[in-house]
Amino acid sequence: MNHPTPLSQALRRPLPAALADALAARFGDRFSVAQAVREHHGRDESPFPPTPPEAVVFAQSTDDVVAVIDLCRAHRYPVIPFGAGSSLEGHVLAVQGGVSIDLQQMNRVLSIDADDLTATVQAGVLRKQLNEELKSTGLFFPIDPGADASIGGMSATRASGTNAVRYGTMRENVLSLTVVTPDGKVIRTAGRAKKSSAGYDLTRLFIGSEGTLGVITEVTVRLYPVPEAMSAAVVNFPSLSEAVRAVIQTIQLGVPIARSEFLCAATIRAINAHSHTTLREAPTLFFEFHGSEASVKEQAELVQQIARDHGGQDFEWASRPEDRTRLWNARHNAYFACLQVRPGCRAISTDTCVPISRLADSITGARRILDTAAFPTMILGHVGDGNFHAVLLIDPNDAQEVADAERLNDEIVRLALSMDGTCTGEHGVGLHKIGFLVEERGDDAIDLMRRIKAVIDPHNIMNPGKVFTTP
Amino acid sequence: MNHPTPLSQALRRPLPAALADALAARFGDRFSVAQAVREHHGRDESPFPPTPPEAVVFAQSTDDVVAVIDLCRAHRYPVIPFGAGSSLEGHVLAVQGGVSIDLQQMNRVLSIDADDLTATVQAGVLRKQLNEELKSTGLFFPIDPGADASIGGMSATRASGTNAVRYGTMRENVLSLTVVTPDGKVIRTAGRAKKSSAGYDLTRLFIGSEGTLGVITEVTVRLYPVPEAMSAAVVNFPSLSEAVRAVIQTIQLGVPIARSEFLCAATIRAINAHSHTTLREAPTLFFEFHGSEASVKEQAELVQQIARDHGGQDFEWASRPEDRTRLWNARHNAYFACLQVRPGCRAISTDTCVPISRLADSITGARRILDTAAFPTMILGHVGDGNFHAVLLIDPNDAQEVADAERLNDEIVRLALSMDGTCTGEHGVGLHKIGFLVEERGDDAIDLMRRIKAVIDPHNIMNPGKVFTTP
Repeated sequence: MNHPTPLSQALRRPLPAALADALAARFGDRFSVAQAVREHHGRDESPFPPTPPEAVVFAQSTDDVVAVIDLCRAHRYPVIPFGAGSSLEGHVLAVQGGVSIDLQQMNRVLSIDADDLTATVQAGVLRKQLNEELKSTGLFFPIDPGADASIGGMSATRASGTNAVRYGTMRENVLSLTVVTPDGKVIRTAGRAKKSSAGYDLTRLFIGSEGTLGVITEVTVRLYPVPEAMSAAVVNFPSLSEAVRAVIQTIQLGVPIARSEFLCAATIRAINAHSHTTLREAPTLFFEFHGSEASVKEQAELVQQIARDHGGQDFEWASRPEDRTRLWNARHNAYFACLQVRPGCRAISTDTCVPISRLADSITGARRILDTAAFPTMILGHVGDGNFHAVLLIDPNDAQEVADAERLNDEIVRLALSMDGTCTGEHGVGLHKIGFLVEERGDDAIDLMRRIKAVIDPHNIMNPGKVFTTP
Repeated sequence: MNHPTPLSQALRRPLPAALADALAARFGDRFSVAQAVREHHGRDESPFPPTPPEAVVFAQSTDDVVAVIDLCRAHRYPVIPFGAGSSLEGHVLAVQGGVSIDLQQMNRVLSIDADDLTATVQAGVLRKQLNEELKSTGLFFPIDPGADASIGGMSATRASGTNAVRYGTMRENVLSLTVVTPDGKVIRTAGRAKKSSAGYDLTRLFIGSEGTLGVITEVTVRLYPVPEAMSAAVVNFPSLSEAVRAVIQTIQLGVPIARSEFLCAATIRAINAHSHTTLREAPTLFFEFHGSEASVKEQAELVQQIARDHGGQDFEWASRPEDRTRLWNARHNAYFACLQVRPGCRAISTDTCVPISRLADSITGARRILDTAAFPTMILGHVGDGNFHAVLLIDPNDAQEVADAERLNDEIVRLALSMDGTCTGEHGVGLHKIGFLVEERGDDAIDLMRRIKAVIDPHNIMNPGKVFTTP
């Protein structure tokens, strides 16, 4: 069982008065212990109840972050980085108390190096903001987790999303990070060269470290020329399994699709209700193609043929920008659309990812597991990567539903692990997958991670209780 | 100065007799202290004089590697992994003595999962062997450093090569590693899912760790469908700078070229002499295009136009497989062709990589620096990544030439560092770039790397003296 039990308050420590005084002296009204401010920083998009930090500092610079870390370290007091609050795994919850460093005021795009296809941003820059500022350059930043997350938070959770099938994840698209380590040092993990063999890969060490090794304050990302042509398509299938098989074959043939999203009939129903669309309520794939005019046409024809071979029908095209935007907005709002299916519910979202050949078994297996549920469930996700999300809509006050949801979640994750997959394709470990991480990688690998954590953060002040249980 | 002074024998330790006995008992005739065997394992393609280990074990399994590490750890004695011996930075040289673990008998392709576009191989599998075994599948493994390196060694040095501009480096193309850590534990760093946010990125930690954190024994790599169409082209330019500018523009426009190699006139001359080709002795670009027939045609036309705009001429095409093979063989033999320009010489090869917009300044700057040399020099490399190699052909017995070469090397590296580039794009740090690594990333970053090294390898038995100086 991997239920939100890490929310135990046993390790929670109050804010030392001397630390509060020092932070207030240094940050003035950018330091807050106000209840509303604390509560805002103690919640994310996870199903966990709010767990506020004891205080919040609004950082405006890397130096500010150094100051918070130095003061907190002196008091052995937890530090929790806060970006946009769009995490799905409780990453920002202050389970041991602590000071939340809000990075939202570190929202400047520091440089757009169009000739190098890179941009360097402060950690609090939101992905939509970055793409807005890139508009005049003919370049874009492709990583798109749906939510308007911060680039720092996306780095910290190794986020990806709909475009990852073509452009990769944050792992592939971050060139360099500026990080404040728990000893208050400022490290730039790499230069801006596209590749390097210079020493240990500190960039990748911090990507996905979920705030447990330091605070990311600046990020250099890769950019891409906006494709000459883009086209999206919607296609319905007679069954979940046929839809998934169409995607598998598309990937195996190496068609360079930019996006391929699966949505089950129940998800489409929720989207129609929420976004006032009239999509056919059947297992559905959304595709997007990027390239030259000729290449997009070629890809689209190939995928259409593959889809037809798997019973795909009602192929609908969206080539005009506004039609594509409407389609992807509907997709991005799917999570919120699902939530509205059952007012007052909380959503538990699985995030398994498997080798592509096992995707059909993994999804149909998940569907079978979910069919036993007494509450609404949906399946959707970035199937081109082998990644999908089962969404379980539970009444958080119904202990039986909570327990049932956790049991079904466990079964879905274990099925993915039995296929050499992962418990989390893109959301991260946070509070909810600590046990699964051990199952997935084994005690020796976790011991290695723990030793790295211990040597970088010997006082365990950086976002304690996430990724691992605290010893 | 970063001359081969780490070759000091001060830290060299003889093989403890008890360790020798234990290894002999465990491995029989797969354990050797024969002079010829030791010498073979004490050299690579670097300019360093041979520095043999005290003994060699021929491992046939991960368990064998565990046994060597366990025995060596008990004696606090160094362990040096050995793949194909094609390293360029002295990675396998036994500067502190030690037992070389030869992985060449771990040469089995363990599984080809064509439906997942992955293969799992033992670390000693050579890249050409893997592609040979993939032939019937319609898939290929793209990373191509020129030398027929082992997949384990390529992982350990974060290798890349000619195809990296399109397919990425080992960093992007390894899904998972099996690693024996210095405490004798066997860790599988990840599953086979294409992406994962499950904990610290142990895969990327070991990629590029150059044998200093453990021994890689198995590697799961990504495969790609063999493109429907492939075409190569050779084009000459009036100057080095025009050639490089053509590449820069190609990259900035996002043309998905598969390869783009620069060769200076002197390199072409060396190739013509060595490979009996009749290429025009001018600054030259080799291109390769992968994709559908239509896409390859489109890319080729676009690049041809860009090349013409920069004075490119004599565009020659190689679309037949045998013509392409001849072309790339000539490119791959360039290093050996250069060596033959000056019989008895050793080659010092730089390996800087810079953001693409700085490539022209970086290469023309290097050319200016090299123009002062009293020995032959060439420039070639994977310019699409911003990576190139200056090859300095020196008489290793001429102290003045050695000193001059190191000085020129220093200048070229510092020029790249001043452009936010790296001292090594793909060869690794090894013995030769230890000082540059500190200049490049700074003391705090190196301290972090050292702490990670110390906590994973507390007795410093894994390939000591590489990446960092031993304290």
